[in-house]
Amino acid sequence: MVSTRIEQIRSAEERVADENAALLRAMGIVAVHLLASPGAGKTSLIVRTVGSLAGRLRPAVIQGALSSQPGPAPLDLPDLPAVRVDTGGRPYLDASMVGAALEQLPLADIDLLLIEEIGTLTSPASQSLGENLRVVIASLPEGEEGPLCYPEPFTHANAVVLNKLDLLPHLEFNRSRFHEAVRRLNPRAPIFELSCRTGEGLEQWERWLSEQVLLPRD
Amino acid sequence: MVSTRIEQIRSAEERVADENAALLRAMGIVAVHLLASPGAGKTSLIVRTVGSLAGRLRPAVIQGALSSQPGPAPLDLPDLPAVRVDTGGRPYLDASMVGAALEQLPLADIDLLLIEEIGTLTSPASQSLGENLRVVIASLPEGEEGPLCYPEPFTHANAVVLNKLDLLPHLEFNRSRFHEAVRRLNPRAPIFELSCRTGEGLEQWERWLSEQVLLPRD
Repeated sequence: MVSTRIEQIRSAEERVADENAALLRAMGIVAVHLLASPGAGKTSLIVRTVGSLAGRLRPAVIQGALSSQPGPAPLDLPDLPAVRVDTGGRPYLDASMVGAALEQLPLADIDLLLIEEIGTLTSPASQSLGENLRVVIASLPEGEEGPLCYPEPFTHANAVVLNKLDLLPHLEFNRSRFHEAVRRLNPRAPIFELSCRTGEGLEQWERWLSEQVLLPRD
Repeated sequence: MVSTRIEQIRSAEERVADENAALLRAMGIVAVHLLASPGAGKTSLIVRTVGSLAGRLRPAVIQGALSSQPGPAPLDLPDLPAVRVDTGGRPYLDASMVGAALEQLPLADIDLLLIEEIGTLTSPASQSLGENLRVVIASLPEGEEGPLCYPEPFTHANAVVLNKLDLLPHLEFNRSRFHEAVRRLNPRAPIFELSCRTGEGLEQWERWLSEQVLLPRD
């Protein structure tokens, strides 16, 4: 009984995800779902990326938060359409939340939508929000074995960002072991090593992201 | 219907938590539930703590893992009773898993049980496993606002550890803002600033932990 009901809820969510995907496609928007641990640098990467791409692309942000209280101020950048979604303690966004947020955004003026997930690597990353791409952000202080401890988001990622590269001299972090760990889970996703603090490596990430937006899609 | 069934499951879990608590009390064991983000240093803190306390206390470990594959090797220290619990992808331990792990430990030879949770700050930290104490481990690279973004584990913590203090010269981390953030959520829990890498600050944490084990309990 319970599982039937849960199946029904899940398939309803899948329908909403399909609707989100159809709406995004119709409006010519590429949506990128960003997953990471707390403090890995999701918001920093968004701020950096939006700042760099603003002249070439028209970005917007949906930002998940566990609760509107007592968290820090929502993302507030001039000219950036942004909607904060309060999940009410739920540890991840769902398609309905994203669908409701889409209604609050000026979709005709957007071509790149960055969706900032709640900070966790344990949510069901395989569940669709209607996004086009999934990107997982790891950071050096989390260690090179992180992907093997929390494999799901890495397995399903279209790209992997390794942030906080500026801390490399101060940590025992083995980059090739990190690459090997990611490759065990995901043979193809590009890996972007960068530092949101210094700006190192951001260009390659932004070039890849721009290409995803400008790629012809069916 | 669904909510009734979920209530039943929850109250069954609460009964198991009570049984775990009764068993631990009968055996004179103090159980400490360790919560943290991925890579904050749960395993490092356990290795350090067990190494220092081994002469004075008899520790044991229950280590949660999302899956036995393809994660790194389980904790394997000489003379340390340790059980690894594979949650099968579930993002947190529950009382039944801990109860099953207790059956595999030599309870008569233990007085301190460290329970390493799956690395996430979004699990329901208020749900009991039968433990005596909850400790949340934050780390400097996660930023000083982390507690406000992921409040629940900090609100319910009996102590807060701030790890990776050795990175302080290399980060813009404001310690007093971190303390203020914790204090907004939790007015009393002691905060231990330390570095598992250098050993700085570990003594105070270990003294507090020893006192919790040696305190008379009813």
